[in-house]
Amino acid sequence: MSRIGFVGLGIMGGPMAANLVRAGHRVAGYNRGPAKVERLVAAGGVGASSVAEAVRDAEFVFTMLPDSPDVEAVVLGEDGVLAHAAPGTLLVDCSTIRPDVARRVAEAAAARGVRALDAPVSGGEPKAVDGTLSIMVGGEAEAFAAAREVLGAVGTTVVHVGASGAGQTVKAANQLVVAGTIGLVAEALVFLEAHGVDTEAGLTVLGGGLAGSTVLDAKGRKMREREFAPGFRLELHHKDLGIVQSAAREAGLSIPLGGLVAQLVAAAVAQGDGTLDHSALLRQITRLNGRD
Amino acid sequence: MSRIGFVGLGIMGGPMAANLVRAGHRVAGYNRGPAKVERLVAAGGVGASSVAEAVRDAEFVFTMLPDSPDVEAVVLGEDGVLAHAAPGTLLVDCSTIRPDVARRVAEAAAARGVRALDAPVSGGEPKAVDGTLSIMVGGEAEAFAAAREVLGAVGTTVVHVGASGAGQTVKAANQLVVAGTIGLVAEALVFLEAHGVDTEAGLTVLGGGLAGSTVLDAKGRKMREREFAPGFRLELHHKDLGIVQSAAREAGLSIPLGGLVAQLVAAAVAQGDGTLDHSALLRQITRLNGRD
Amino acid sequence: MSRIGFVGLGIMGGPMAANLVRAGHRVAGYNRGPAKVERLVAAGGVGASSVAEAVRDAEFVFTMLPDSPDVEAVVLGEDGVLAHAAPGTLLVDCSTIRPDVARRVAEAAAARGVRALDAPVSGGEPKAVDGTLSIMVGGEAEAFAAAREVLGAVGTTVVHVGASGAGQTVKAANQLVVAGTIGLVAEALVFLEAHGVDTEAGLTVLGGGLAGSTVLDAKGRKMREREFAPGFRLELHHKDLGIVQSAAREAGLSIPLGGLVAQLVAAAVAQGDGTLDHSALLRQITRLNGRD
Amino acid sequence: MSRIGFVGLGIMGGPMAANLVRAGHRVAGYNRGPAKVERLVAAGGVGASSVAEAVRDAEFVFTMLPDSPDVEAVVLGEDGVLAHAAPGTLLVDCSTIRPDVARRVAEAAAARGVRALDAPVSGGEPKAVDGTLSIMVGGEAEAFAAAREVLGAVGTTVVHVGASGAGQTVKAANQLVVAGTIGLVAEALVFLEAHGVDTEAGLTVLGGGLAGSTVLDAKGRKMREREFAPGFRLELHHKDLGIVQSAAREAGLSIPLGGLVAQLVAAAVAQGDGTLDHSALLRQITRLNGRD
Repeated sequence: MSRIGFVGLGIMGGPMAANLVRAGHRVAGYNRGPAKVERLVAAGGVGASSVAEAVRDAEFVFTMLPDSPDVEAVVLGEDGVLAHAAPGTLLVDCSTIRPDVARRVAEAAAARGVRALDAPVSGGEPKAVDGTLSIMVGGEAEAFAAAREVLGAVGTTVVHVGASGAGQTVKAANQLVVAGTIGLVAEALVFLEAHGVDTEAGLTVLGGGLAGSTVLDAKGRKMREREFAPGFRLELHHKDLGIVQSAAREAGLSIPLGGLVAQLVAAAVAQGDGTLDHSALLRQITRLNGRD
Repeated sequence: MSRIGFVGLGIMGGPMAANLVRAGHRVAGYNRGPAKVERLVAAGGVGASSVAEAVRDAEFVFTMLPDSPDVEAVVLGEDGVLAHAAPGTLLVDCSTIRPDVARRVAEAAAARGVRALDAPVSGGEPKAVDGTLSIMVGGEAEAFAAAREVLGAVGTTVVHVGASGAGQTVKAANQLVVAGTIGLVAEALVFLEAHGVDTEAGLTVLGGGLAGSTVLDAKGRKMREREFAPGFRLELHHKDLGIVQSAAREAGLSIPLGGLVAQLVAAAVAQGDGTLDHSALLRQITRLNGRD
Repeated sequence: MSRIGFVGLGIMGGPMAANLVRAGHRVAGYNRGPAKVERLVAAGGVGASSVAEAVRDAEFVFTMLPDSPDVEAVVLGEDGVLAHAAPGTLLVDCSTIRPDVARRVAEAAAARGVRALDAPVSGGEPKAVDGTLSIMVGGEAEAFAAAREVLGAVGTTVVHVGASGAGQTVKAANQLVVAGTIGLVAEALVFLEAHGVDTEAGLTVLGGGLAGSTVLDAKGRKMREREFAPGFRLELHHKDLGIVQSAAREAGLSIPLGGLVAQLVAAAVAQGDGTLDHSALLRQITRLNGRD
Repeated sequence: MSRIGFVGLGIMGGPMAANLVRAGHRVAGYNRGPAKVERLVAAGGVGASSVAEAVRDAEFVFTMLPDSPDVEAVVLGEDGVLAHAAPGTLLVDCSTIRPDVARRVAEAAAARGVRALDAPVSGGEPKAVDGTLSIMVGGEAEAFAAAREVLGAVGTTVVHVGASGAGQTVKAANQLVVAGTIGLVAEALVFLEAHGVDTEAGLTVLGGGLAGSTVLDAKGRKMREREFAPGFRLELHHKDLGIVQSAAREAGLSIPLGGLVAQLVAAAVAQGDGTLDHSALLRQITRLNGRD
């Protein structure tokens, strides 16, 4: 049993905190607005009325926040995690943010005697609920070892990929591949539709050969039927592709396919599809072809 | 037991013909040069010294040839399949060719009382050997029904996707998705390497989440280790992307990702990597980044 | 004074033939439908009721036709130019067609003792009317020399760029650069508009620096004001980019920007803008950004 | 006659300051290291040993610096321009930086009673020497009016394009169009070379038609002959395309051609061509095609 503070109890953070409770840990959760905190209390957790209260006495502090500035505010801010965490605490940031911000957070933590891991997750709400997320962890091996057991309560594939920021780097690569694969499946679908092919049969054969992918399995049928309730919102994927672009630029990299799919996603958001599931990139390819 | 003529006994055609023999059929095989014919004879088939001889008396004629002009020559040519096949024969063309050529072949066959299916395959040499190919079949439902059993000797996923040419259309979509996915995995790998991430761990996590794909499973490790013995040659994929481009143009389609990956594959071939496995597109992304 | 046959009296061919008349030549013109022929007669030319009649007795035969198949039909066809032209005639094809077709036409002509030049033009209807076209000529130097004077009646920049087909190759390069430049100006305009910049002032400064171009001079103001009456129709530019793509593929070339702009033009045509001026590619960029 | 402080006496700033001297102004110049200051003194200017000294008593302060962080340091820094400029001074920043930084600088200046214009220039070293630059100016109309005369000493096209930051926005659009045009000319050249066309003649005809551009005029011949001494370094253009990308992202824009050319320029820099002239993007297109 560990004492855990958890800040950010949204679509992903909420079920993750509940799974930590279920695994026998004491979880003190904080979120802006009482509703989400109450849900954690109902699941057996402890309600906290501020970051300070969530963090105090915690051995582990989990954060699950939307974007880099949120993490900077909540962790580095005046009344934030580092201002209240005791030396020796282990910070596990599960947000998807810029790798350089993750490194900055880890340095600031170290200056306070706090260890930090960047531990973004993949798999979406269903796997957050089931506790079967993939977790890509950056930071020191010793800190990873210390967090390994608690992370096991929220994910099944938990891998240490390198030093601070490396988790975010792998997550960026993940988002590049996912957006690109959605785009490719979308182009293939429009191609088959335009040629009058039976797309149900078509997707079956594609899935059975070298064109198969988790995207095709998880989203292919929904894309065929134009079901785009999120899921993972296109506007968040757009944000993530911004991270990919700047991480590429910082490393002096050329990623032509990643660059193009980022432009297509930007177009989809500009045309008002940002709140749909990211598989709605299909709508952009459809519009390009005057077939909407 | 059926009487089958088989023209084109190469890397794919050879093992496919052998599997037909194994399933109990009488297979008369022809190839330019005696070596490949002898291999079929050793496997229990019958050697034919010309297309005419392979085709004569056959209930089914299989063709497995490199490109559209080859199929036009062998099927429509002066001394070709249609010149010698008896009315009622069923032609099963497993080559990857242009959908419009497949339709033209089917029309020419019909004029001779010969039924025709376009039945390109996916899965590469290992699945050709195992008889577990995916087969995407275009043509009349009745002809598909008649060929269903013999096709079962070479593939496990055998799907009727539409009228004549539809098999080729689905294969084109397949090649678009496969090339694009290889490109995305390549960009992700170079991205991870440039950021000093442990790529073995990285690919594991990618594979476990929404970024997972058959390409990543089948080729990810080899790409990491730069093993590019073919497999499916990049120059053939380049040819197939030419088919994708013209099929898109004929249908008035815009496929931006497909268009860009075709340019990247063209560059890879132009730089001399055409005879490597198509996963060697990684070398192109690596060179772009001055990291070769 | 030369005897000239002229086949194809459309938007470009009509004024070109009239300029040849004005320069003192005897021009026998043919077009499908009498209206365009009558216009040439009104301008002082001679009406011909068939290709045969236009070609008979001619020293030079000009053709100005929409696409490769038209040239193949009119020049190589049963009752076409080569069937009726006397040996020693010089064929000047001003159509924009595939370089390989231009070479094939030249070979067929040579077999009949007819010399041939591919001589596509640039500059649009206004320069066709003024006789100030740019003409890029492929073929033998001796044939170019023989045609130099008559070409001077329709264009001011008349350049011999290489052997048969080279004129078409340069025209293809021209169309690649023009489409790309329109696309870049369109992106710049949308960029300035989205940032609330005074675009009239903005285009003035762009035009004065290294970003200046003939496209910006000729079409910038119209693009700002969304005036898209053709001019050169987007659907013809789409056809020309198809020529660029296949000429690149035949030469084993990778042209990423050319490839992408071809996809954007294809999208514009798919969305119904094919009959507008090619500068209407701006509408495609505007739509991509949800700003239409 | 005005009193002018000038910070940043490099390839562009040096001749610009000298032209201000020539126009009769008192110019106090500062640069890190004495060599460049001495050159200004030799041209009739006044040497300053610090930003403070250059700025003190000045009516106008010009800055010409490489990148956003340099401007932030020199203008906003502890011992910077704003710390020493008297209220009423007019700051003219000619650097190419991010529009949001330009706005931030203007706000900080206003808080000190200093007016500020962003006034990036276009035309390169030759036009800086000749005093014929294009200058795109953002800021208040009244400040533009006040600076109009001194700007006339360094440029011939001096245009007020909008509020603070608008000058940088137009410069970003300029850099997008210029990089794209260089890329298009490069693809056209490689296309012509691969087809064995006489490229000298080819570029002449391209220049005479709708494909003509200032890039083609100023750099076409050098690109043909592979002369890539800078001029404007590719690595600076790479930086500018980073500005374009983030300005597009902030405005929620999709600019596919701009995105792709940024990837190509990134590749060129990654492969070691960053210190060559930006027209050396041709080398990247050449390498893509295995023709280097």
